[in-house]
Amino acid sequence: MTRSWTLGLAERLGPGRLVVDGDILSAHARDHAQFAESGAAAALVRAREVEDVVTTLRFASRHRIPVVTRGAGTGLAGGANAQDGCILLSLAAMNRILELDLAGRTATVEAGVLNGTLAAAAREEGLFYAPDPASRDISTIGGNVATNAGGACCLKYGVTRDHVLALTAVTADGEIIQTGGKSRKNVAGLDLTRLLVGSEGTLAVVVEATVRLLPAPPPASTLVAFFDDLSGGGRGIQSMLAREHLSLVEVMDRTTVRAVEAMAPMELDTSAACMVLVQSDAESSDAVMQRCEGLATRAGASAVFHTDDPDEGKMLLKARSLALPALERMGSAFLDDVAAPVSALVELLEVCEGAGRRHDVTVGTFGHAGDGNLHPTLVFEPGNARAEARARAAFDDIVEGALALGGTVSGEHGVGSLKRPYLDRMIGRRERALMRGVKAAFDPEGILNPGRGF
Amino acid sequence: MTRSWTLGLAERLGPGRLVVDGDILSAHARDHAQFAESGAAAALVRAREVEDVVTTLRFASRHRIPVVTRGAGTGLAGGANAQDGCILLSLAAMNRILELDLAGRTATVEAGVLNGTLAAAAREEGLFYAPDPASRDISTIGGNVATNAGGACCLKYGVTRDHVLALTAVTADGEIIQTGGKSRKNVAGLDLTRLLVGSEGTLAVVVEATVRLLPAPPPASTLVAFFDDLSGGGRGIQSMLAREHLSLVEVMDRTTVRAVEAMAPMELDTSAACMVLVQSDAESSDAVMQRCEGLATRAGASAVFHTDDPDEGKMLLKARSLALPALERMGSAFLDDVAAPVSALVELLEVCEGAGRRHDVTVGTFGHAGDGNLHPTLVFEPGNARAEARARAAFDDIVEGALALGGTVSGEHGVGSLKRPYLDRMIGRRERALMRGVKAAFDPEGILNPGRGF
Repeated sequence: MTRSWTLGLAERLGPGRLVVDGDILSAHARDHAQFAESGAAAALVRAREVEDVVTTLRFASRHRIPVVTRGAGTGLAGGANAQDGCILLSLAAMNRILELDLAGRTATVEAGVLNGTLAAAAREEGLFYAPDPASRDISTIGGNVATNAGGACCLKYGVTRDHVLALTAVTADGEIIQTGGKSRKNVAGLDLTRLLVGSEGTLAVVVEATVRLLPAPPPASTLVAFFDDLSGGGRGIQSMLAREHLSLVEVMDRTTVRAVEAMAPMELDTSAACMVLVQSDAESSDAVMQRCEGLATRAGASAVFHTDDPDEGKMLLKARSLALPALERMGSAFLDDVAAPVSALVELLEVCEGAGRRHDVTVGTFGHAGDGNLHPTLVFEPGNARAEARARAAFDDIVEGALALGGTVSGEHGVGSLKRPYLDRMIGRRERALMRGVKAAFDPEGILNPGRGF
Repeated sequence: MTRSWTLGLAERLGPGRLVVDGDILSAHARDHAQFAESGAAAALVRAREVEDVVTTLRFASRHRIPVVTRGAGTGLAGGANAQDGCILLSLAAMNRILELDLAGRTATVEAGVLNGTLAAAAREEGLFYAPDPASRDISTIGGNVATNAGGACCLKYGVTRDHVLALTAVTADGEIIQTGGKSRKNVAGLDLTRLLVGSEGTLAVVVEATVRLLPAPPPASTLVAFFDDLSGGGRGIQSMLAREHLSLVEVMDRTTVRAVEAMAPMELDTSAACMVLVQSDAESSDAVMQRCEGLATRAGASAVFHTDDPDEGKMLLKARSLALPALERMGSAFLDDVAAPVSALVELLEVCEGAGRRHDVTVGTFGHAGDGNLHPTLVFEPGNARAEARARAAFDDIVEGALALGGTVSGEHGVGSLKRPYLDRMIGRRERALMRGVKAAFDPEGILNPGRGF
């Protein structure tokens, strides 16, 4: 049965677009999420043009075949994982920058363009594409749009949703739609653009995006501070955030600092309860950092240091970028993504620490403290089922704890399949019914990434 | 018939909530839009609590009575105008600031809180509520949310949608829903929050909003430049925007400058083709303005001046704030609101000028040049039907011209009823069907502001 329809779809697509080879399908069956379910796809379509997407969706809609759209597969919630019998629709090869409007400061790109490629093209023109997920060099704009990707400098500049002006998408039944517009302000009709952003491939397949560019900011100054207790770190972070318009405020707990220091010795203070990294990309960033140093000291920092040398700043940030790889070296790493109001930052850090203690599992917590968005990472012995069960229990506790603090089950990675079980505890019955109503308006047959996202 | 149901609703609401007095209804029948249709309401409900909204909507939904929600009635597209037989649901008396979370930098307010009241409360704590519609001292947060209100400093900080984290709303059938959350990042489920923002009272009645606050920026430096031709002004604006992260870039054409100078003499250059106002609220704003002065001069400015004295800056901005009142002194003023990509700014200015010339009507154009969002204002003799017809024809041409430049029928005022006739030329058949599908999911009976918005 599967074989026959795949032949039919292959005929309608151009040569080389449809793949049914088992090894290739397996290689595309998962995103980067650990512990998220995945199934066996029937086929992979490698779209090169919008017309390929149209053809695929028309076909899938007629035959009611589920379609899972994917970019580079760097997602962290299983949202791009294969489902049994589905078409995996890859947009990775649709990777052209279609327009850089310098005077209008917008870029229009196909969904498969890497974030880093767009950012570099903008930078060459003195412009700046702000959203900076850690995956930016390997993740696509389409995937960033699907998950509403965040990143460190979203503290100052906002997340992906805040930078998308217009989208071209293909509906479940294969019609091309245009949402939004190239003007920077636009209030004509319901905002389908921002509705599609973050919808994790459940409403339509985004094939092109027009995004805002900003003038490139000056090089950042960087501050690093160590605190002997989490509450001092939290106080320091809150006092800096209340006074300065900072471009980055990251935190790493003791477990994470130790893991990083063990992987790449750089004389970090491994006795501190937490390490805080702060950047300002204001023109007067050195003065900003000076004031932040005072605030950190007043909050009880055991050591503070700041520099306006961009290279030194990059070296300091390297510790943060090694957080996940360093924890992954220690065992199986189960990455979480929760957020709470910044006023509850200390409590959220304590939730993570407490969950690890309670379930006897190593928890390394790091993340975008300025946005109250943390990535507690549970580390356990690979293949040890009981250790994995303890890690899952700790994961549950952390999500529950974030919700209890008025937070969210996902700050920036998305719901995918990984966070589905938790969503009902956060979103009410009627609100979910409204989401299902919106879904039905876009995808009445329910073929787009079914069961994912919400 | 009407009388009987109004008694039924009055009984269910507390005393003093329901008004049927003809004079009071008339006084609430219109927003600030000229030339937008309005009808005769059956009743006005002055809600004081969420429960009043619930009661009203339950009742309206049972009896299929249209409901038009209003805040302060300062809208400029007729979106809050009465419809025949409707309930006008005023949230103006729901005006409590419910929470200022200083460490989390959020505010939670009832819908009737004035933008200016919220901004002042934030300012007292060293914080900043960014969206600054010109109406901010007299318009409510609920109305700002309903229209996704913009303003001058949205150039740097974004529009209302970019600052709303969570909403409490009441559905058409009277159920209370919560969307979003207090954490600054949140990707759990479809983004109903940003969908409700800008939906002009057609999806649900927003009763509370949680908004982001920012650290208060330093006082701004201000630059004023005059240009002998529009294209020089446009080039100057574009070159400044491409290099500096400015907080305000406004423009006024010759007609507007002359109207302002006639109303309040301040030695503006009335021979210039346009006047450009620029602000930076960076800490190093004086250096920014120095560089902008160079860029303006290179673009051919006939005169440039900048100051870091905030009071002097306020005086310079006064010219801009007088633009509409000054044009209104000259006759009936028909205010438009269009936007195009900033790369087409000069062309958009020319569209406005050309439309006035072609239809023999005075057009004064001013607006948020940095966002490509202009407010061409057509001035004609009051009561002169032929002059009004010419103004309407020019209005049509301007909207068409903006669309032809890749722009929008409304940059920040909304569609309301005024821009309804133009929307079909901008938004495709399928896209409108999707919007209707979303509407049906929220308001299956179609009682919420029917026929408005999209």
